[in-house]
Amino acid sequence: MKVGVIGSTGYAGQQLVWFLNNHKKIEISFLASHTFSNNKYSYVYNNYRNYIHDTCINIQEMYDYLPSTDIVFIALPHGKSMDIAKDLISKGIKVIDLGADFRLKNHKVYEEWYGLKHISNELLKEAVYGLPEMNRELIKHAKLIANPGCYPTASILATAPLIKNNLLQANSIIIDAKSGVSGAGRSLNNNTLFCECNESVKAYKIGKHRHTPEIEQELFNLNEENTNILFTPHLIPMNRGILATCYGKLSKDVSLGDLQEIYKEFYSEDYFIRITEDIPETKWVKGSNFCDIGLSFDKRTNNVIVVSAIDNLIKGAAGQAIQNMNIMFGFDEWEGLDFPSMIP
Amino acid sequence: MKVGVIGSTGYAGQQLVWFLNNHKKIEISFLASHTFSNNKYSYVYNNYRNYIHDTCINIQEMYDYLPSTDIVFIALPHGKSMDIAKDLISKGIKVIDLGADFRLKNHKVYEEWYGLKHISNELLKEAVYGLPEMNRELIKHAKLIANPGCYPTASILATAPLIKNNLLQANSIIIDAKSGVSGAGRSLNNNTLFCECNESVKAYKIGKHRHTPEIEQELFNLNEENTNILFTPHLIPMNRGILATCYGKLSKDVSLGDLQEIYKEFYSEDYFIRITEDIPETKWVKGSNFCDIGLSFDKRTNNVIVVSAIDNLIKGAAGQAIQNMNIMFGFDEWEGLDFPSMIP
Amino acid sequence: MKVGVIGSTGYAGQQLVWFLNNHKKIEISFLASHTFSNNKYSYVYNNYRNYIHDTCINIQEMYDYLPSTDIVFIALPHGKSMDIAKDLISKGIKVIDLGADFRLKNHKVYEEWYGLKHISNELLKEAVYGLPEMNRELIKHAKLIANPGCYPTASILATAPLIKNNLLQANSIIIDAKSGVSGAGRSLNNNTLFCECNESVKAYKIGKHRHTPEIEQELFNLNEENTNILFTPHLIPMNRGILATCYGKLSKDVSLGDLQEIYKEFYSEDYFIRITEDIPETKWVKGSNFCDIGLSFDKRTNNVIVVSAIDNLIKGAAGQAIQNMNIMFGFDEWEGLDFPSMIP
Amino acid sequence: MKVGVIGSTGYAGQQLVWFLNNHKKIEISFLASHTFSNNKYSYVYNNYRNYIHDTCINIQEMYDYLPSTDIVFIALPHGKSMDIAKDLISKGIKVIDLGADFRLKNHKVYEEWYGLKHISNELLKEAVYGLPEMNRELIKHAKLIANPGCYPTASILATAPLIKNNLLQANSIIIDAKSGVSGAGRSLNNNTLFCECNESVKAYKIGKHRHTPEIEQELFNLNEENTNILFTPHLIPMNRGILATCYGKLSKDVSLGDLQEIYKEFYSEDYFIRITEDIPETKWVKGSNFCDIGLSFDKRTNNVIVVSAIDNLIKGAAGQAIQNMNIMFGFDEWEGLDFPSMIP
Repeated sequence: MKVGVIGSTGYAGQQLVWFLNNHKKIEISFLASHTFSNNKYSYVYNNYRNYIHDTCINIQEMYDYLPSTDIVFIALPHGKSMDIAKDLISKGIKVIDLGADFRLKNHKVYEEWYGLKHISNELLKEAVYGLPEMNRELIKHAKLIANPGCYPTASILATAPLIKNNLLQANSIIIDAKSGVSGAGRSLNNNTLFCECNESVKAYKIGKHRHTPEIEQELFNLNEENTNILFTPHLIPMNRGILATCYGKLSKDVSLGDLQEIYKEFYSEDYFIRITEDIPETKWVKGSNFCDIGLSFDKRTNNVIVVSAIDNLIKGAAGQAIQNMNIMFGFDEWEGLDFPSMIP
Repeated sequence: MKVGVIGSTGYAGQQLVWFLNNHKKIEISFLASHTFSNNKYSYVYNNYRNYIHDTCINIQEMYDYLPSTDIVFIALPHGKSMDIAKDLISKGIKVIDLGADFRLKNHKVYEEWYGLKHISNELLKEAVYGLPEMNRELIKHAKLIANPGCYPTASILATAPLIKNNLLQANSIIIDAKSGVSGAGRSLNNNTLFCECNESVKAYKIGKHRHTPEIEQELFNLNEENTNILFTPHLIPMNRGILATCYGKLSKDVSLGDLQEIYKEFYSEDYFIRITEDIPETKWVKGSNFCDIGLSFDKRTNNVIVVSAIDNLIKGAAGQAIQNMNIMFGFDEWEGLDFPSMIP
Repeated sequence: MKVGVIGSTGYAGQQLVWFLNNHKKIEISFLASHTFSNNKYSYVYNNYRNYIHDTCINIQEMYDYLPSTDIVFIALPHGKSMDIAKDLISKGIKVIDLGADFRLKNHKVYEEWYGLKHISNELLKEAVYGLPEMNRELIKHAKLIANPGCYPTASILATAPLIKNNLLQANSIIIDAKSGVSGAGRSLNNNTLFCECNESVKAYKIGKHRHTPEIEQELFNLNEENTNILFTPHLIPMNRGILATCYGKLSKDVSLGDLQEIYKEFYSEDYFIRITEDIPETKWVKGSNFCDIGLSFDKRTNNVIVVSAIDNLIKGAAGQAIQNMNIMFGFDEWEGLDFPSMIP
Repeated sequence: MKVGVIGSTGYAGQQLVWFLNNHKKIEISFLASHTFSNNKYSYVYNNYRNYIHDTCINIQEMYDYLPSTDIVFIALPHGKSMDIAKDLISKGIKVIDLGADFRLKNHKVYEEWYGLKHISNELLKEAVYGLPEMNRELIKHAKLIANPGCYPTASILATAPLIKNNLLQANSIIIDAKSGVSGAGRSLNNNTLFCECNESVKAYKIGKHRHTPEIEQELFNLNEENTNILFTPHLIPMNRGILATCYGKLSKDVSLGDLQEIYKEFYSEDYFIRITEDIPETKWVKGSNFCDIGLSFDKRTNNVIVVSAIDNLIKGAAGQAIQNMNIMFGFDEWEGLDFPSMIP
């Protein structure tokens, strides 16, 4: 099976290439890159010396490769994949979009949060939100996957069992998330210079981050009563990883043990979810497609605290995209993804 | 004026020595260290080469220096300063204890959270909780200062104006705090090895951290209706800094502008508090005694979010101890402490 | 084929387990650990949740497993494997020792540099220095492999082609090496605490590091004229990686292009050596078994500069051990090791 | 005394402002910035909230402030200060240039290494290379100071006593230097993004770095026989600090003790040089104007190894500039600079 990648030289695209290179069932058809077209891929990313001999192509050249391509991954900034995806779908090619363009079902919500007109909103109905633990059946038959954002992956997986089981007071969810710097991408930005990030931590876009409506949409699908969440992202001086500390007020009297059972049951069929007895740390999932989830209960304030840990570039981006591809094409869900974290 | 330090070779003790070395109004009387007695101080901490010529003494030798000592700082683990403080106070020497032994007014609460019997509980009445922005007048005349913990300093300063003005729904406060590794001290511990901390973030002691009752006690002093908080500490791969992201549900209809005015008013006489227009980052306070506080309001969930940033070893420990000493002895409150952060 | 690991919970042992877990041709027989015996391995290293269900055994219990074990890896501090290896060899079990006990052929040199009597020096003749790029044929038939140290791996691979081709002036080699902190192991040590390493760089054991005679021994095997090297290790605030910057004065007139050809030729059969056109960085080999080598020539001082980069825990320890096992048992040399670095 | 700063918002400029803010004898006249003109300085660098109320001006506006300005610091990239310095000098204003334009006495060498025509080469004769430990007397009467580069400061101070005393074989010096990322400045560059630097180390510009001729020029001034050095810079994942590991072959038979005495004697009048008994680490000088120097001798290869440690932004830039100003204006050399490193 042949796979193309658009936006192959960003951090998410590069991570995708790592997994594709390692995947037994597929071959790379083309690697497109706006910034590095005509450069050897292994020149941009020297780790692929002796592994990947491709030269990056530009988006125009891609059309030569499409006839023999089965699926295309798009790893571009929001706003850039709408029309490309439409074009590919019209040619009968499946698409997994790692960007934000097809995640929000309501184009007005997209336009409000992203400040952009949606030019392919007829595709929104077809697009499947590619969180396998929620939508595995739909993914199997999808043509277009909207691969979830990194923060929403950690946030939704952490809170879904509570929401689904109607265990929380309305509007009580607060998600305090901490992300490594690779989440900000590889484009030049003063805020992601080494000396600006190292030895510091900050919150940003409090209550205004674009991943907020995405989390709310998916939780709403599970239970229409809990719609508004407060989401606060933070930047941490490390390359990879997201830790989402999620708070909610319990609406019912359940023990911590019960809660853990509910989570184990909810994710009993999900290879990449691990319900942990202690509180997760990002190092235990770094470099892997796992989402570790641990629970705690604070009787004094009646809060349940759910902490989830993912690798933002893997379960939060490229790994999940591969997982989606595996489901779409009937491979084992863990094909090419079956690694524990490499520490330290 | 002559100053002694017990526990001078831990991270907090060492930071204290940095400020004492730089303070115009005082002289060092002795530097005591359990682990490094008989070593030159500048051999343990080479940064003090050419500055500090003292040799560390042990606690027994301290008694020779006491007759000419005006104040003693104790920077020892909890449980270790109770009897030493009692002894010093009985000799007419003022004490600032950077540890936890005199912070909690109710010795039963101490015993519950610290699992230790309090052997000097008659001193608890006399001890003043040394957060100058709350207790400046009491500090002026105190013999024994319980210097606040690092997390409580950031947490109380962030939330006090809301509590004092009765602006929050009862029991709605959640404090999600992120600390650099120096907060864990310099003693050997597998969890603070470089490779265990670097490239990872974790939550720990959720709802069970010993700083919880300390925060609650001080907030209770401001307003008896808001007593229970949920406090979640996290460990971040950096040396210094605490960022406390504090959440509370508003009980009244106030605008963000009003809230900012309330904070400015509340801290109008406080040199080391800066109410910021944007959200603070720890790098802007690293190496300084400042506490930066920024506010945000999320209409969708009716949460006020207050973010405070301190240097855990300075405003969270040694700097605050110096500030307390300055107040006790009638020096300018910023004497020896008047530095902005050195970045990057 | 069944494999046992002694010292499985140190950083090198753990890295070994990562590769063993992923290796198609082997099964784990036992995981022994002094510190964590009777603990589940995945409790010590949570990344192995759902992967490794073994409980750590102690060294006494190991004997029950030996009858069905084909090879044992020993990852213990120096001095600890001498007698264990002898015992295992006597039972007909192959051994790969990741420690230092069998690396130096002359037990007097061992005793001088390690300050320990060698109690198994009759095994030294049999032991093969397990650097496959130098000793592949010997490794094929070895019973006991002395797996090279991390610094020697980077240093020998960087300089061997120059030495072999007699291109350097005698005694002109200086190796200035920079290592991540995992090289110091996981045992408790004040010097490897996060706050002691982060934001600092230092040289240590200049000219006295125990890897010096190991490097010299192997270079001497190639060319008896160049025996003394100066080796200076440095500690860098990162988890993994060694960069060895090697200097030597040319004894002949050769161009940079010629030198690069000599290196390519020398390593033409070596899968895990990549001669790079630019200067290597450790990030391009992190997480992989590659050694990247780049050359530079400074006409003004007649120095050739060879820079090599490895992952100290992989090509410098566990990966090389697996590579040796693969050679000993006739597997593909890259079996279970065929990954490019995962960045960032 | 009034002081202006051009290029006040780069890392070196900002560090200069930190020291100026703290200096008892001076007042800031103006802070010019190309990128941030019309922004409040404390908006660009929030650490200066409540300290610095100035708004950045552009270079044209500077002329209004010059009549009341005694000295101007220029912290611009090379090529940008030549004409500005000429103009200021012609107006009778003293200049300390932190850039490279006046460091090389021979404009042809400048043009060769920097690839730029020197348009103020008549000023080169007047310019004094501002390394106080070498040129204190000249600095006292200078109008124009060429403030040394960060690497040359560490390199020259480490090797000068050997060169001056003719203790090294000709052309045997190799300087292997390791720098934190702030040395690369604050301008946008893919190579200084957090994820590109963190968890990696690399060598760069081997034998070709522009600081090479600067080091050679100053060493040549001490001894004309030792002219060619090999200089290899490395980038280390930390904010601040340079460690220079310097190697040279001894030409005479001297003991390590003798060498240490020679260094102590050479720097006996130099407040900011500390000859250490052990090998320096950058953490002990971080945040200070000190240069720590330690020596080692390797009998086996006849190499002396001198390791120097500085803070690249302080002794390697802004601190040294202040030190030069202090000397020029007859202040104590350590005025405003008298701090030990703040660790951790």
